[in-house]
Amino acid sequence: MASKRCYHSQENRKLGNWGTHPGRLFATGNPATLRPVDLELLRELSVPNTTKILLLVIDGLGGLPNETGRSELEQALVPQMDRLAQESLCGLPLPAAYGVTPGSGPGHLALFGYDPLRYAVGRGVLEALGVDFDLQPSDVAARGNFCTVDAEGRITDRRAGRIPTSESAPLCGVLNQIKVEGVQVFVEPVRDHRFLLVLRGEGLSDRLTETDPQREGAKPMPVRALAPEAESTARAFNDFIAQAERLLRESQPANMLTLRGLAKHPPMPSIVETCKFRAGAIAAYPMYRGLAKLVGMDVLPTGATFADELATLKEHWGSYDFLFIHYKRADAAGEDGDFQAKIAALEEIDPYVDALHELKADVFMVAGDHSTPSVVAGHSWHPVPFMLHPQNYAQADQSEGFNEKACAHGILGTIPAKEVLSLAMAHAGRLTKYGA
Amino acid sequence: MASKRCYHSQENRKLGNWGTHPGRLFATGNPATLRPVDLELLRELSVPNTTKILLLVIDGLGGLPNETGRSELEQALVPQMDRLAQESLCGLPLPAAYGVTPGSGPGHLALFGYDPLRYAVGRGVLEALGVDFDLQPSDVAARGNFCTVDAEGRITDRRAGRIPTSESAPLCGVLNQIKVEGVQVFVEPVRDHRFLLVLRGEGLSDRLTETDPQREGAKPMPVRALAPEAESTARAFNDFIAQAERLLRESQPANMLTLRGLAKHPPMPSIVETCKFRAGAIAAYPMYRGLAKLVGMDVLPTGATFADELATLKEHWGSYDFLFIHYKRADAAGEDGDFQAKIAALEEIDPYVDALHELKADVFMVAGDHSTPSVVAGHSWHPVPFMLHPQNYAQADQSEGFNEKACAHGILGTIPAKEVLSLAMAHAGRLTKYGA
Repeated sequence: MASKRCYHSQENRKLGNWGTHPGRLFATGNPATLRPVDLELLRELSVPNTTKILLLVIDGLGGLPNETGRSELEQALVPQMDRLAQESLCGLPLPAAYGVTPGSGPGHLALFGYDPLRYAVGRGVLEALGVDFDLQPSDVAARGNFCTVDAEGRITDRRAGRIPTSESAPLCGVLNQIKVEGVQVFVEPVRDHRFLLVLRGEGLSDRLTETDPQREGAKPMPVRALAPEAESTARAFNDFIAQAERLLRESQPANMLTLRGLAKHPPMPSIVETCKFRAGAIAAYPMYRGLAKLVGMDVLPTGATFADELATLKEHWGSYDFLFIHYKRADAAGEDGDFQAKIAALEEIDPYVDALHELKADVFMVAGDHSTPSVVAGHSWHPVPFMLHPQNYAQADQSEGFNEKACAHGILGTIPAKEVLSLAMAHAGRLTKYGA
Repeated sequence: MASKRCYHSQENRKLGNWGTHPGRLFATGNPATLRPVDLELLRELSVPNTTKILLLVIDGLGGLPNETGRSELEQALVPQMDRLAQESLCGLPLPAAYGVTPGSGPGHLALFGYDPLRYAVGRGVLEALGVDFDLQPSDVAARGNFCTVDAEGRITDRRAGRIPTSESAPLCGVLNQIKVEGVQVFVEPVRDHRFLLVLRGEGLSDRLTETDPQREGAKPMPVRALAPEAESTARAFNDFIAQAERLLRESQPANMLTLRGLAKHPPMPSIVETCKFRAGAIAAYPMYRGLAKLVGMDVLPTGATFADELATLKEHWGSYDFLFIHYKRADAAGEDGDFQAKIAALEEIDPYVDALHELKADVFMVAGDHSTPSVVAGHSWHPVPFMLHPQNYAQADQSEGFNEKACAHGILGTIPAKEVLSLAMAHAGRLTKYGA
């Protein structure tokens, strides 16, 4: 009953009182005011509460049938997810738009309530946030990849055999010594063959192209300016690259680099201010920590495995209202085109779903940031299986299982992924009434 | 395997390389850029490929139950469509908006990826394009209907008994002699009782009302200006009408005319530039050719029957990436309120669906521009049965048939009709990833 009381407490009514809310966009009784969109509406209607929302993101969750006619989720033995689906609202969130294959950035932003077509985040920014780099608004960050090139400078391996961080970190140390006139240079290892490059200085622009030709046998391209104001920034990056090429020429196993996602820190509204909750993020991989930080969540230190993440979650359970926990292996298996490995990854997470369910969040969501079907061996445009398990007010589907087809027939149907946060907020008693 | 290669070819990755695409709207990591919408996003993400997309539009495809409780599609014997539905993604595209009955123009534009509420096209423009009239940006075009009026000028038959083109063409020759001060007058026969009227001159406006009272027993109305700048154009049209009335007074079987859809050529983005494919259209009826031309498709000369259209399609199969083929009879039967004729029209097209399927397009879509239920005897607002059959990455519905109810439970559910082109592009490997 304590839980139920929260939904209708006088305090909440008062806080959410339409017409007196300090953060509101509407004047009471001013119908000519334009409709607020997306996060603005959420900000307008959200009220504090004592309820908890738990979001499990199974990266690359969605799949497609292989020659058996059944998808990874349909073939996997996932009794806990199947059981939970029977008591949940199921559906197929569409991350970005019909037919549009999202990167991990847009996929996560949508689950955090942001329209990913409105808020675009460059990869360089994500990498910077993921390694706790203190990115300034004027900085331009790039995701770097160590690669190998032949005597003519043509790329022979775009990832330099995915060299471990222990080998790429010393190379970063070398590059960190490079001096470029007029800017400060920061090079930091990220993971494996990936590193972060940040240029800091006056008047830098991120209207820049990438250098990765996206295939082997081609030379890295120069950074090119997409607007006149970016010419000097392009020159600075190309100066860095030229020096790096000389420094790396004799090194092993990587002797060159490429740069992608050259970007500045975008202005983003805070999910914490928008939803009036305390939000914590638990993710082993840097990029997902970066995304969470970008939207204003606290990023909690954790270990490399999902068991570590779960322990971190339990440790901080009392301190947060919204908790995001990330599971990576399903995506990695899908990216590798390994149908059986993806099944195994889904079966690995299944008992944890039960453990998370037992925490009795007021709303527990199992979601994916995008589909990564093994038969595609990459991300795809397909909407992603989803279930929202509320402690109260469930319109449960009595779905027969948790998979693409069952969710297509779920009570939520195909919905924009950016809407699921609002549904969670509503079921957690955290949204007040709209209008009189 | 050749087909699979297309989806992940190095060339496509390169062409779609996020951050270097020449047509893109985003700077890498420039989140301040406003969200692109609709066709802009498609233009941003589309990449060339060697795959083929085939769109069959069964005009007025959707229906409603008669007293038997089953719709035309449910009663028709359409084994080929039923079978194809089992291997397809099924759904119910909504042409314009919930509850909104679209004309053929909006219905087709949506299937071509255009938001029909954003891109409004006057019927006069469609008729002009359909008869290959070289419409200029300053021209105002109107669709004319020959009709019959009684001695008091009240309409007795809005279509003059659907007189054949052989009888309406001489009348057009008469009207083409009319002189109106300050403008050039063009009158051309279209088909049956329909003709095209174009006024060409300086400063013409299309903010004008129509003259067809839409019922018999009423007199044609004058053209009225909807804005001050259209007053002189309204006078020019009314001058034309007054002269036409005198010239036609004694003629048989039509002795008067009405004007509808007075419109200028709207600025439209090209589907060819947006999607980076070669697009061809095959339609026996002028208006559909006009629609296709309006969005930038090549309109291929063809004959009067669907067998002619199919022959044309096969002849040009190798020259196009996107082919639109149009079947009219289902709509005509629905408009006439003839339930059995509509069933017959659906049964007539069914074997052709199999013939089209055998061409093995990478994506084959069977769609309707709108519903024309026989019990309505006109267009209706209902979403329209649809199936998308991909060669790769199918999430097939195993639907029991191709009809309104089965498609409502299809994996696509009810979706905006303007989104189906994006889905086709995705399944044809013609859209690159959005964001990192």
